[in-house]
Amino acid sequence: MKHYLQFKDFRAEEYAYLFERVRVIKQRFKNYEKYQPLVDRTLAMIFEKASTRTRVSFEAGMYQMGGSVVHLTTGDSQLGRAEPIEDSARVISRMVDLVMIRTFEQTKIERFAAHSRVPVINGLTNEFHPCQILADLFTYLEHRAPIGARGFEMDSLKGKVVAWVGDGNNMANTWLQAAEILGFTVHVSTPSGYEVDPKVAGISSTGCFKVFNDPIEACRGAHLVTTDVWTSMGYEAENETRLKAFADWCVDADMMAVAQPDALFMHCLPAHRGEEVTAEVIDGPQSVVWDEAENRMHVQKALMEYLLLGRIG
Amino acid sequence: MKHYLQFKDFRAEEYAYLFERVRVIKQRFKNYEKYQPLVDRTLAMIFEKASTRTRVSFEAGMYQMGGSVVHLTTGDSQLGRAEPIEDSARVISRMVDLVMIRTFEQTKIERFAAHSRVPVINGLTNEFHPCQILADLFTYLEHRAPIGARGFEMDSLKGKVVAWVGDGNNMANTWLQAAEILGFTVHVSTPSGYEVDPKVAGISSTGCFKVFNDPIEACRGAHLVTTDVWTSMGYEAENETRLKAFADWCVDADMMAVAQPDALFMHCLPAHRGEEVTAEVIDGPQSVVWDEAENRMHVQKALMEYLLLGRIG
Amino acid sequence: MKHYLQFKDFRAEEYAYLFERVRVIKQRFKNYEKYQPLVDRTLAMIFEKASTRTRVSFEAGMYQMGGSVVHLTTGDSQLGRAEPIEDSARVISRMVDLVMIRTFEQTKIERFAAHSRVPVINGLTNEFHPCQILADLFTYLEHRAPIGARGFEMDSLKGKVVAWVGDGNNMANTWLQAAEILGFTVHVSTPSGYEVDPKVAGISSTGCFKVFNDPIEACRGAHLVTTDVWTSMGYEAENETRLKAFADWCVDADMMAVAQPDALFMHCLPAHRGEEVTAEVIDGPQSVVWDEAENRMHVQKALMEYLLLGRIG
Repeated sequence: MKHYLQFKDFRAEEYAYLFERVRVIKQRFKNYEKYQPLVDRTLAMIFEKASTRTRVSFEAGMYQMGGSVVHLTTGDSQLGRAEPIEDSARVISRMVDLVMIRTFEQTKIERFAAHSRVPVINGLTNEFHPCQILADLFTYLEHRAPIGARGFEMDSLKGKVVAWVGDGNNMANTWLQAAEILGFTVHVSTPSGYEVDPKVAGISSTGCFKVFNDPIEACRGAHLVTTDVWTSMGYEAENETRLKAFADWCVDADMMAVAQPDALFMHCLPAHRGEEVTAEVIDGPQSVVWDEAENRMHVQKALMEYLLLGRIG
Repeated sequence: MKHYLQFKDFRAEEYAYLFERVRVIKQRFKNYEKYQPLVDRTLAMIFEKASTRTRVSFEAGMYQMGGSVVHLTTGDSQLGRAEPIEDSARVISRMVDLVMIRTFEQTKIERFAAHSRVPVINGLTNEFHPCQILADLFTYLEHRAPIGARGFEMDSLKGKVVAWVGDGNNMANTWLQAAEILGFTVHVSTPSGYEVDPKVAGISSTGCFKVFNDPIEACRGAHLVTTDVWTSMGYEAENETRLKAFADWCVDADMMAVAQPDALFMHCLPAHRGEEVTAEVIDGPQSVVWDEAENRMHVQKALMEYLLLGRIG
Repeated sequence: MKHYLQFKDFRAEEYAYLFERVRVIKQRFKNYEKYQPLVDRTLAMIFEKASTRTRVSFEAGMYQMGGSVVHLTTGDSQLGRAEPIEDSARVISRMVDLVMIRTFEQTKIERFAAHSRVPVINGLTNEFHPCQILADLFTYLEHRAPIGARGFEMDSLKGKVVAWVGDGNNMANTWLQAAEILGFTVHVSTPSGYEVDPKVAGISSTGCFKVFNDPIEACRGAHLVTTDVWTSMGYEAENETRLKAFADWCVDADMMAVAQPDALFMHCLPAHRGEEVTAEVIDGPQSVVWDEAENRMHVQKALMEYLLLGRIG
């Protein structure tokens, strides 16, 4: 049984397989071809932080695959409060086929997974957000990679540069893991005090990323420029301090101008125009943020299929 | 693509079609005939105000049609808070097939619809409540209209009188739109200061309604007498003032006595017996409030079918 | 039409039938045999108290049977607040096929049931918790009863001793009803002031239980030892007082040592190790608490099938 708790839980070949499945599954959805392989399976979603995108993408995705969803919020459930997480894992995993958790510490989801009888998916922790990077990579491939006999030419990712502008957060950590596994480079530029930490990021060497003080320099030559809100959920108390610290880390036309001419812009949303990105960029022609949002759903459908049914065909 | 944001979004012929579909769909439900045309479709419901009836009627209705539902409350979602409504519309409408919204200002649902890729249904705004009037009209037809070769004789509505007693609110506004389109007259009697406003009601002339100071006079000769709670959701702060202002606008046996002998009584519920209606009336033989409540579900099933699949047959 | 509001709503023969159905339904689940007899049926769940186990077990159970679920919490719904419970019952039971309620007073669920058109299930009240005892009895039979031509040998329960250690609460009350109907004996030991009340328990004689001051004596010779948290939901204000009063009512190895050598230990969870039970006991070889938790789902599937479809075959 596999879990998906961080990006490095899968190998490069598994990603190649997964992205091709996403392509097939998305195509079926677009053609109104019914494909319901999970018809008697139930997903429990446990949310300790609010969510729109993660909620709708997993829930609608599971329905499209024929399955069912139990949506638990911290109010209903009691992850670690009324009983040890281990007990919750034992009980819930007796009743459903798959569990998605959005929580705070990565250790919480790891403790849950260690006592679960069914696969567990990380729907965002303080440290990682692998489902989002899965969506981002698929969106990149969809827009830029040729399709060969076995699906996307995964070599398209090799040597490419992803510019990460802003907070050295769970998204940044996950980009580093993806770069290490799939062979691209991340240019990271964060304000001082918000650096990415390779130990937290869980990478085995620092060869997969370069640090830039100046965000413009990070974007130079990038094939993909991406950022996130300055104040992620759980850090609202730091909002004012962050507004000042991040003032120069707004992705704007100048940054996009030094990137590759066909560079894409991505953002995991919600976006604050005028803070981490200008309206000109996010609403401009290089932005693929709405495809990226939709692809959350499709990558997660393929992920759930893989965790529950293994390799198809 | 059509939305259903206010009653006047559909023409009279569309209502004739819809009511006949409701009749067929309700009959199938009563006979336990499975009819699941929406089997791979998902409805997102966004609630910014609490609800029982709207919640259960849409959700159970969608399940009966074979579809699925994602239920978002303001706590989960972030309609206009963390991101512009337009962004929420873009994202959510990439993942589901249909959206129902219960919110405050009508402009909010209009902004959402303008950026949605999928049909949007008004599940109640401060200005309108078209799904409720759809249910009320179906309930009237079901109890009073002959069935011809093409369904209900819609002419049964022509020239009829609906007495609206109480608040000049979203229900009253929607009744005026319905009267204008379907050819009946609304007798409106509200306390001073709570009048219906034809501009807000969105009607093109004032020929569809008459105003009465005395609620008894409004009820005289009416084929249907209907009212609503004195203090709708969102106006709780005005509750004491309203209790005084509305004291004479309680639908009682005297009002029913001057209406047509076979007049029906309706109420969109929840009801406060002894305030806007006496127990004698709402629990009496002319009251069809439980049919009316059930019909919310059936009219919404037909509405969702129409918005998603267009005209059947 | 039948409701399931307390354990004594069914007769012994009905339980024999039900437990055999649970066995069949659980077996199908374990074999991934799709069995979806409730495919066009909807369950409304109304929660006035938080829940994980009841929530997941009913919801996942309904999905496994092919049905759908509308989950209402007190925030959404308005059980007895905005409208009389009787009105809620009339409306909700027009739209769904089955209702489960977790609430405070038993009278609330009885008033709801009296005005419901569809079966109502008690998902826990202050007085009773019949679904939990259903699960406990099935778990006992599954571990200890031989299977005959017509299912479990129900005589295996006759003359057996269940030791109830702790609070004279809704679980204790329900155990007494079960003992009276199925022919076993409950040894009850509670702190002073927390005694079980035969009137509240709703039993017709006191022959089905014996009271012990010393919990060790209650456990002597027992075939099943079971307990519950010291402070159930709704009694949090009494927590400190209860911690003192219940100090000697912790199920430990000494208590298990005087029970039958093959006695089982059960707990409806969540458990507080070191309070009502030691880790040694709940995590030890006689404990069947995880099977018990899973069986909530399976017994409820059989219960819903029985209430909606009657006796199968």
